Amino acid sequence: MISILDSTLRDGAQGEDISFSVSDKLHIVEQLDAFGLDFIEAGNPGSNPKDLEFFEKVGGRSLAQAQLCAFGATRRCNKAVEDDVQVQHLLSAHTPVVVIFGKSSSLHVTEILRTTHEENLRMIEDTVAYFKSLGKTVIYDAEHFFDGYYLEGEASGYALQTLRAAQRAQADIITLCDTNGGMLPQQIFAATRTVLEQLGEATPVGIHAHNDSGCAVANSLAAVEAGATHVQGTFIGFGERCGNADLSSILPALILKMHRKVRGSLPRLTETASAIAEISNVIMPGGTPYVGMSAFSHKAGMHADGVLKNPISFEHIDPAEVGNERRFLVSEVAGRRAVLERVKTFAPKLTKDSPELATILERLKELEHRGYQFEAADASFELMAKKVLGTYTPHFKVTFYKSIGEFPAASEGEPSTATIEIEVDGSHEIAAAKGRGPVHALDKALRKALTVFYPELNSMQLVDYKVRVLEQKAATAAQVRVLIESADAQTSWTTIGVSDDILEASFLALVDSLEYKLASSHRKVM
Amino acid sequence: MISILDSTLRDGAQGEDISFSVSDKLHIVEQLDAFGLDFIEAGNPGSNPKDLEFFEKVGGRSLAQAQLCAFGATRRCNKAVEDDVQVQHLLSAHTPVVVIFGKSSSLHVTEILRTTHEENLRMIEDTVAYFKSLGKTVIYDAEHFFDGYYLEGEASGYALQTLRAAQRAQADIITLCDTNGGMLPQQIFAATRTVLEQLGEATPVGIHAHNDSGCAVANSLAAVEAGATHVQGTFIGFGERCGNADLSSILPALILKMHRKVRGSLPRLTETASAIAEISNVIMPGGTPYVGMSAFSHKAGMHADGVLKNPISFEHIDPAEVGNERRFLVSEVAGRRAVLERVKTFAPKLTKDSPELATILERLKELEHRGYQFEAADASFELMAKKVLGTYTPHFKVTFYKSIGEFPAASEGEPSTATIEIEVDGSHEIAAAKGRGPVHALDKALRKALTVFYPELNSMQLVDYKVRVLEQKAATAAQVRVLIESADAQTSWTTIGVSDDILEASFLALVDSLEYKLASSHRKVM
Repeated sequence: MISILDSTLRDGAQGEDISFSVSDKLHIVEQLDAFGLDFIEAGNPGSNPKDLEFFEKVGGRSLAQAQLCAFGATRRCNKAVEDDVQVQHLLSAHTPVVVIFGKSSSLHVTEILRTTHEENLRMIEDTVAYFKSLGKTVIYDAEHFFDGYYLEGEASGYALQTLRAAQRAQADIITLCDTNGGMLPQQIFAATRTVLEQLGEATPVGIHAHNDSGCAVANSLAAVEAGATHVQGTFIGFGERCGNADLSSILPALILKMHRKVRGSLPRLTETASAIAEISNVIMPGGTPYVGMSAFSHKAGMHADGVLKNPISFEHIDPAEVGNERRFLVSEVAGRRAVLERVKTFAPKLTKDSPELATILERLKELEHRGYQFEAADASFELMAKKVLGTYTPHFKVTFYKSIGEFPAASEGEPSTATIEIEVDGSHEIAAAKGRGPVHALDKALRKALTVFYPELNSMQLVDYKVRVLEQKAATAAQVRVLIESADAQTSWTTIGVSDDILEASFLALVDSLEYKLASSHRKVM
Repeated sequence: MISILDSTLRDGAQGEDISFSVSDKLHIVEQLDAFGLDFIEAGNPGSNPKDLEFFEKVGGRSLAQAQLCAFGATRRCNKAVEDDVQVQHLLSAHTPVVVIFGKSSSLHVTEILRTTHEENLRMIEDTVAYFKSLGKTVIYDAEHFFDGYYLEGEASGYALQTLRAAQRAQADIITLCDTNGGMLPQQIFAATRTVLEQLGEATPVGIHAHNDSGCAVANSLAAVEAGATHVQGTFIGFGERCGNADLSSILPALILKMHRKVRGSLPRLTETASAIAEISNVIMPGGTPYVGMSAFSHKAGMHADGVLKNPISFEHIDPAEVGNERRFLVSEVAGRRAVLERVKTFAPKLTKDSPELATILERLKELEHRGYQFEAADASFELMAKKVLGTYTPHFKVTFYKSIGEFPAASEGEPSTATIEIEVDGSHEIAAAKGRGPVHALDKALRKALTVFYPELNSMQLVDYKVRVLEQKAATAAQVRVLIESADAQTSWTTIGVSDDILEASFLALVDSLEYKLASSHRKVM
């Protein structure tokens, strides 16, 4: 069995464009736990006070599979471990597992840490022993291990001595780190094999690779080939500089190609990767192995033809094994069954041969082409499908709106105003509102007008608002995709709008959100 | 000596978002030739008539180093090679080198090609022999070699027989292709070693890897370890599905880490990769190894601190060796030293004890607390710091703006209008514009007013626009962070704006972008 540690929330947060709120982190923990990994390294409470807030909030939740880990350094030089502030911070995270990192490279000990080789060994041993004595599971991360091993000469043996210090203190796992990410697979393989020979079978050995040489995935697999039984990475490769080893590539290779036992539900791989990208507000490159939109897309006519004759002719695995889908870029065929399953929840009589299903698929294709994406926006999908099926009558119609933004602002903090007119069963209502921005003002005006007819809208609220610029090169004239999540006391739902006008995109998502609520309320009444 | 073939223009063109004009292709040939690779595979004249036009246009140019290759299939089944239309098309490209691909996998011969094993061997031998008899250099690409070798059992030996057919016909190089991209390095190593043992030293063996398992770089290097002396890839990894092996990662590994002889000027690596991305209208991910914007960026305070003490502590190579640069991401966590390094580029007299530095740090912290993030927005950081230092005078002042969005739209496709007034040295200018959304209209109006005073602004453009909603739970009243990347002929820069009004946030980033351009132009004049 190979155990897996995800560090999206700790090492991944060092990525250049990555910045997680506490709520983002909680959502990512949910995703990783639902996928079923062993360890979630969720923060460094010693160096980042925000992480402490997260650990307090997450403390009460029970996870199905994963164990939470807090990450931190060994004690400082010439200090008792009990008096070390960072060590104490780590403890206050109250996680069952701690990951302790220490120096394995002689250069780092003398030049960066500026202490002696002997004191560094004591720092490692003391800190690991301290957390073990408190009943924690301790993963020891040997930072810069491979640099220490190779650059300073295998003969010096200091890198190995640091591992022995952690082993003496009963570390549960010892992880070899390629912190600078420059190693090649043959180097990782040879050094890992030596470590296993030297340490014996008693302590499981792990690998933590960075992608600076473009080999982080292969390096992680090479370590497993050499006998490592623990792999650290980030789910979609986030991390400082060129990122960490991408678990979404490592997991299917371990399971499908190397036939190792690993916890986690591979058919959820693509869904989990997409959700993490979405929460992080990062566009996952289409070409990301296994989980990218293009990973099983066939463009060349010959390839598409070959795949139709026999899928293994141009596919290394069955995309369904990782929850992804085959796409033909010229003639789209994908998704029929998945769409049918969703439509059946509100149109149970539909079958895969119904002509209405074909029409829904066509409309879906057309909207996706325009930048819509219904994977997250289930409420908008339902409204769209019902419109196609003719089973939907809108509850209101917007006949006019005007939104004005001004500088200097006429009223403090509310530089925007909006006016809107709606029609419900032949009655018109006009309303106006001020807001912090044009979308906010429009949102307020629309609700004001609507609640005259539908007071039940007072019981819902918007809980999330996301904006994604598509085709970023078009700059301020670009298409934008807006996702709005709304909730009432019972449930929550997500809607989408796409336009090259951010106001219109937001408005479309807003209208869908209100329509969905009205449809649900009326459904309950009937 | 390892020879290198770039297939950006042929296999790279199969990438999902890639579409080259003839002029794009000519520019990419110039870039690759200036870099100094051996072979440029520029098209498939048999399957794509546009490629023929390209070969006609490129024909007259003399290249400094690279040799052009045309790519095509072996002759069809049961046809004489002289009568095969595609073979003749290949000839009409008039390149010194042809790359011929044939089938190595039994499954492909019977199921996709639908011919006999014997006829397939004759097709390979005939076609290679034909081009050799015409004096061409012939590279033979053994498509699906590894699948044939492994999936159909090494014992069957058919995959090896296809290579022998090419060898009998005197192919100059025989390339083993992982067409489906699913192999792992240990498989590539073992099979390549067997091939070299079987074929002997007479024919150089090459590797052509795809990235479906995320191991294309490592797979290419594994083949070289096993004795391959020819590597095919695409300069920044373009290609169908997950892309081809990325030469910008392979070249520095071969030269700097494996100490092989390879033609090409490594210090031009980053420049060449950026130029190809630009010509292809693709945003190269910041984390791309060696050549990405973030490849040598340090965010964690501890890392920045370590690099300043000794660069090899957190860098696997010197960025200058590949023409890239070290960057310190300015952030609260980055710490005093990283900020000082950045400020010194425009205020060289500042030291770590200057009171101005403390003021800049305080202002930075305050802005970050409000949602600013300067890691990517280096231009906004520079303007902010100069304002603190008192060395900056704004080039214009916005005295008023008003933006209106309307539904139904008064003019088709442009539902927004904006009016703006600016002041430059006591002169006022007022301008108005229509746009696709309020930000677009405001952007257009502002530039219109400004170019009256500063015509040099016509030479810059916005190339990227990003929106991130902070505290998403505040929904439409939430804070938003806008990042704008701008460029002129020489350079590019990024600016930031944060507000709970998306219009204001965009406007702040826009004003910074224009101010930065004006500051740079005037700096050159002085």
